[in-house]
Amino acid sequence: MSADQSRDDRSPLTGEAALAALRPRLQAAKQAGRSLATRTSGVKDAALEAIAQALVDNESRILEANARDLDRAVETGLPLPMHDRLRLDHDRIAALADAVRVVVGLTDPIGTLVRGHRLPNGVRIEQVRVPFGVLGVIYEARPNVTVDIAALAIKSGNAVALRGGSAAHDTNDVLVQVLREAIASVGLPADAVVSVDDHGRAGADALMHARGLIDVLIPRGGKALIQRVVQTSTVPVIETGDGNVHVYLDASADLQHAVDIVVNAKTQRVSVCNAAETVLVHRDAAERVLPAVLTALHDRDVTIHGDEAVQAIDSSVVPATEDDWQTEYLALELAVHVVDSIDEAIEHINHFSTHHTESIITEDYANAERFLSEVDSAVVMVNTSTRFTDGGQFGFGAEVGISTQKLHARGPMGLPELTTTKWLVRGEGQIRH
Amino acid sequence: MSADQSRDDRSPLTGEAALAALRPRLQAAKQAGRSLATRTSGVKDAALEAIAQALVDNESRILEANARDLDRAVETGLPLPMHDRLRLDHDRIAALADAVRVVVGLTDPIGTLVRGHRLPNGVRIEQVRVPFGVLGVIYEARPNVTVDIAALAIKSGNAVALRGGSAAHDTNDVLVQVLREAIASVGLPADAVVSVDDHGRAGADALMHARGLIDVLIPRGGKALIQRVVQTSTVPVIETGDGNVHVYLDASADLQHAVDIVVNAKTQRVSVCNAAETVLVHRDAAERVLPAVLTALHDRDVTIHGDEAVQAIDSSVVPATEDDWQTEYLALELAVHVVDSIDEAIEHINHFSTHHTESIITEDYANAERFLSEVDSAVVMVNTSTRFTDGGQFGFGAEVGISTQKLHARGPMGLPELTTTKWLVRGEGQIRH
Repeated sequence: MSADQSRDDRSPLTGEAALAALRPRLQAAKQAGRSLATRTSGVKDAALEAIAQALVDNESRILEANARDLDRAVETGLPLPMHDRLRLDHDRIAALADAVRVVVGLTDPIGTLVRGHRLPNGVRIEQVRVPFGVLGVIYEARPNVTVDIAALAIKSGNAVALRGGSAAHDTNDVLVQVLREAIASVGLPADAVVSVDDHGRAGADALMHARGLIDVLIPRGGKALIQRVVQTSTVPVIETGDGNVHVYLDASADLQHAVDIVVNAKTQRVSVCNAAETVLVHRDAAERVLPAVLTALHDRDVTIHGDEAVQAIDSSVVPATEDDWQTEYLALELAVHVVDSIDEAIEHINHFSTHHTESIITEDYANAERFLSEVDSAVVMVNTSTRFTDGGQFGFGAEVGISTQKLHARGPMGLPELTTTKWLVRGEGQIRH
Repeated sequence: MSADQSRDDRSPLTGEAALAALRPRLQAAKQAGRSLATRTSGVKDAALEAIAQALVDNESRILEANARDLDRAVETGLPLPMHDRLRLDHDRIAALADAVRVVVGLTDPIGTLVRGHRLPNGVRIEQVRVPFGVLGVIYEARPNVTVDIAALAIKSGNAVALRGGSAAHDTNDVLVQVLREAIASVGLPADAVVSVDDHGRAGADALMHARGLIDVLIPRGGKALIQRVVQTSTVPVIETGDGNVHVYLDASADLQHAVDIVVNAKTQRVSVCNAAETVLVHRDAAERVLPAVLTALHDRDVTIHGDEAVQAIDSSVVPATEDDWQTEYLALELAVHVVDSIDEAIEHINHFSTHHTESIITEDYANAERFLSEVDSAVVMVNTSTRFTDGGQFGFGAEVGISTQKLHARGPMGLPELTTTKWLVRGEGQIRH
C-alpha cells in the first residue's frame, strides 16, 4: 500500500467496494486471530518484546515517515493542537516501547475461569475467558494509538484491524509494517495486525459492515466519530470516551473539598474526557461555597458560563444558555448552575450527562448514597475528583478506553474487557431426558 | 389501544413517526426503570406475586382475547404449528403463573459486588450490578414470552418495552393490562411494562431507533427477525437463538455414545435452537459407527441428507448439497458429512456454524481438548448432548435466551445478563496529581 493510494481524497472506493477489496485481508486477520487464540502467554509476550525492540531499532524509519505527515499537516493547514498529537520523536518512541513492555507485565486474561459447576447428572460446565477474534479500531491521527492498541490486542489473543486518522497515514503505515515484522519474527502470524488505511474513509465504512469478520468495533475519538460509527455500524460497537462530566456541590459540601475537587476536575488536564464540564451547586451552598470556587477558577483562567443565580454572585461570568448544559468544552471553560435540591441535581445530570463520570461533594451520608444510587453514569463518585476515572488510576495497568455505554463494558476498560467467554462442557455420554 | 388500530396492515405509521408518537410512552418507561432500579427485592417480588395471582384471577378475560386471536389465525390462514404456540388454556395460564413464582425464588442480581479495591491514595472503588434501564424485546406470536420477559425484567430492576407478534395482539394487549394493574397494585409504576404493539411493525422499528430510551434490544425469534434487527437497529442488540448445531463423531468415538447423543441431540425436541442439524463423522469411524447411528435415526423418521461417503454406507439417504451444511432444519432432518480429519471437522464447523453449540464424541484426550479450544462457539462440548445448552439445564433458574454473539453475553442468559455494572467511588477530598 503506497502513500499515493492512501489519502481520503484519492480513495474512490465506497464502503461496499472497499469491503469487497478488503475481505481477503480481514479473512487473513480472522485466521490469525484463530491462531493467536490458542497461543500461550509466553509466545504473545515474546511478540510484545519483539515489538518494543523493533520500535527502537526502526526509529529513523518511523521518524522519516512522521516528518512526511508533519510536512503535509503544515501544507493542509491541520489545526495546531493536532500537530502535537501527530508528532513522534526519540523520547516518544522510547515511551511507546516502554508502554509495550508494561503490557508484557500485565496478567493475560485468556483462560481465566469465570465460573463453573457440576450439573446434577455429572456433566461439568465452566465458563472461561477467550478472545473476541478480530477487533476493529477506528481512531484519530495519534500514531501512539496504533502501537498501544496492537499491543493490547495481541496480549488478549485478538487480531486487530486498524483505521487511523489520515493525517497520520505515513507514520501508521511504517508502524504497522514494523509491528507485523516483529510479530512474524517470533513465529506468530503477521496478519494479527492489519490496517485498512489504504482505503481511507471507505476502509472505516468497510469495518463497520464487516459482519462475521470483525467481532467488535471500538471507535476512539471525538463525539462526531463515535456518533457516525454508532449510527452506521452493523458490527457490534463499544462506545467510548464522550464525557459531559458533572461535579455537584451539595448543601453540606466541605468548602476546601469543593475548591480542590472542582479545580482539579476542571484544570488538571482540560482536553480529556474525565475533566469536569458543569458544576451544579445547591442554592443553600451557593453564597458560602461559590465565591471561593469561582475565584480559584478565575486564577486558572477558566471562563465561567453561569445562570442568573451565579451571575448575582460574580458579575464577571458569561451568561449561560441551555447549550452550555450539554457542551463538552474540553477547554478552560465551565458551566455553573444553581439548583434547588439534590433531586434537581440528579435530574439535571441524568438528562444532560453523557453518563461518563459525576461526583457529589457532600458531608451528608443519605445524600451521598442517593447520588451513588440514582445517578445513571458509568462512574459515580463522592468527595473525589472525576479525573480518577482512568484505567491506570483504577489499577488496570492499561486502558483501552472508557465505555460510556451499558453493554459488555462500562467505565474504564482493561484487558478483560477485550475478551468474551465460552462455555466448556464435559460429559461421559449424558443425554437430556 | 383498541384492537382495531393494531394490526400491521392497518398501521400507516413509519418507524420514525411511530417513534415520535411513542416517545412519551418510552420516556415513561425510562422513568419507571429509574424508580425500579432503586427498589428492594422485596418490593419487586411482591409485584411478581401480584402478577402470578392476577394471571389466575383474570383467566376468563385472557382466554376471551386469546379466542379472538385464534379465530383470526384461522381466518388469515396462519400456519398450524403457530396456532399451538399462540393458544392459551386453563393449564397454560396456571403454568405461566407458576413460572412467574419461580422467578420470585431466584437471586436478585442487583447490587451484587463484582469486584472492588482501595486505590493507593485511599479512594475506594467498587463495581456493582445495576439494571440496564429499559429492555426492548421483539418476539413472535407467543403470549407466554410477554409474561416471562416482563417477570425477568422486573426481577432484574428493568422496565421493558414489548413488541409481540401481531397474531397474538389481543392476547398480549390483555396480558399487558393485567401485568400493569398488578404492578401498580403494589405501588410500583405501571409503566415498568409498556407495549408498542398498537403501532404494529412500525413499533418494532421505533424500538430499533430509540437511542437513549431503550438500553438494549433483544430479538427473540427466527433468523429473519434477528437479521432484520441486527441490520436496522442503532440501539445495541443481543442476538439470540440461531442454532446450526453440530455433533462431530471422532475416529475414536464410543459407538453407544455416538448413537445416544446424536439421537438425543436431533430428536428429543426438534424445533429448538440447541437441536443438532449436522453430524460430521471422521472417515476412520464411518464404517464402524454410521450404520448404527443412521438406523437409530431412521427408526425415529429422521430424513438424512448425506454426502457420497454416507450414501455409500446407506443408499436410502438423500444426496446432500452445500445448502444442507448451512440449513437449520428445526425438523426431523439431518445433514451428515464424512471428514478426513479433526482439522477438517473444526474448519467445517467454524465456517458453517452459527456459533451456538457443538459437541465432539471422542475417547481421545488430545482431540477433546483441541475441539474445546479451537471451535469458536458459545458452548463447546465433549461426549454429551447439545440439548443441554439451556438456562434451566445450566442451573440459572430462568432463561432470557441463548446469545450467539460475543458482546456482553454468550450462551444461555440468566438474570445477571440483564444487568450492567456501575463503578461507585468514595473518597475524602482526594484529587489527582
